Amino acid sequence: MTKKLGILGGMGPLATANLFKMIVLLTDANSDQEHIHIIIDNNTSIPDRTAYIIGEGEEPSKYLIESAKELEKMGAEFLIMPCNTAHYFYEDIIKEINIPFLNMIEETVKFILDTHPDINKIGLLATHGTCSTGIYDKYFRGHEIEVVKPTKDMQAKIMEFIYDIKSGIGKKKITFDGFYKAIEEMKQQGVELFILGCTELSSVYKIYEMRGNYVDPLKVMAISSIKYSGKKVL
Amino acid sequence: MTKKLGILGGMGPLATANLFKMIVLLTDANSDQEHIHIIIDNNTSIPDRTAYIIGEGEEPSKYLIESAKELEKMGAEFLIMPCNTAHYFYEDIIKEINIPFLNMIEETVKFILDTHPDINKIGLLATHGTCSTGIYDKYFRGHEIEVVKPTKDMQAKIMEFIYDIKSGIGKKKITFDGFYKAIEEMKQQGVELFILGCTELSSVYKIYEMRGNYVDPLKVMAISSIKYSGKKVL
Repeated sequence: MTKKLGILGGMGPLATANLFKMIVLLTDANSDQEHIHIIIDNNTSIPDRTAYIIGEGEEPSKYLIESAKELEKMGAEFLIMPCNTAHYFYEDIIKEINIPFLNMIEETVKFILDTHPDINKIGLLATHGTCSTGIYDKYFRGHEIEVVKPTKDMQAKIMEFIYDIKSGIGKKKITFDGFYKAIEEMKQQGVELFILGCTELSSVYKIYEMRGNYVDPLKVMAISSIKYSGKKVL
Repeated sequence: MTKKLGILGGMGPLATANLFKMIVLLTDANSDQEHIHIIIDNNTSIPDRTAYIIGEGEEPSKYLIESAKELEKMGAEFLIMPCNTAHYFYEDIIKEINIPFLNMIEETVKFILDTHPDINKIGLLATHGTCSTGIYDKYFRGHEIEVVKPTKDMQAKIMEFIYDIKSGIGKKKITFDGFYKAIEEMKQQGVELFILGCTELSSVYKIYEMRGNYVDPLKVMAISSIKYSGKKVL
């Protein structure tokens, strides 16, 4: 019997849909019935995570906990959450539920350590929230890997890029100049590999064939989830 | 306030993921919070619908009802179900729930009548289950439109094609010969427009740039769902 997966989603909705699709496409199954039973709460009423972290918005914890509990009630046997920034509240959520919750930041760090054992610098492309709370630094601690973040000016450009994507890639003209400028600046500091540390970036880098050497936490989670549920990856 | 949407999914999982993504991409929203709250039960334990209809499998109704009830309990305010064949059990499900359930077959028929007022023949590309139960014929009744189905031999080819897709488009070599042969035969009967009457077909016709003039019930449902929830379509 495979384990039922619960996805605490909606942050954003496109990332949630992409992760779901990736799991389906990567699962080794010969019929509908051999696929993983997945329950998704694409809960778009969760307040903006970064806004709260920088002191400008409502606390998202209670919404996250409510969503996690609902998924457990629906029969989910383990959880994942496709939002890097929301992992700042991970400890608050696990205290309130009785099922395992795979941590996307931890899984991504493990993946990087496994696949790039000699790396000593990694670039973080993420929201202000994810950068300022140091959630990636926390899981890299003790591994002599420096998490390099963009300078303040460049970070503002990354943030603008992420929120343009949230505004709808079909609606707004997305410009890459700022994004690539930030990357260039970090490359000059010796960074060769970048974490797409916001699920919005995971959702567009393939569509736009974005140039660069990236680790995609959404893909890491798709693979971890399939394995954890007891299925084989294609 | 927009209405929360519940998706009774898993039949198959890829169609469910594609519908979810279509809804997100087609919603006019400027932030995560402006998107529709969607709860999905990608319930892969629902027995094969066609197998039951042709007398070879377990009754899916009780699983469908259970899933619908769970979605209602989670707070869904209306339901949709991305599986044509499963609509054979539609009446059984609505009796057991207290929220509206948009009928994909009915919405698709309405869409065809609106967009092709002069049509008098329509081709149905679907599973044995959907063809033999006449669910599309039922909703076309009274409109002087003939629902043309493939001959027995050609229907077998369509069914093989659909179940090859269910086996995983990444795993199996999909061959189109049988599918196009069936289409050609129906064209000779004067059919110019075809319903992709199985969500598996909806999921692949764009990937493979399949030639032909199709109506996609999944896309019809994505648009109907966005409107019904109270949001604008992009």
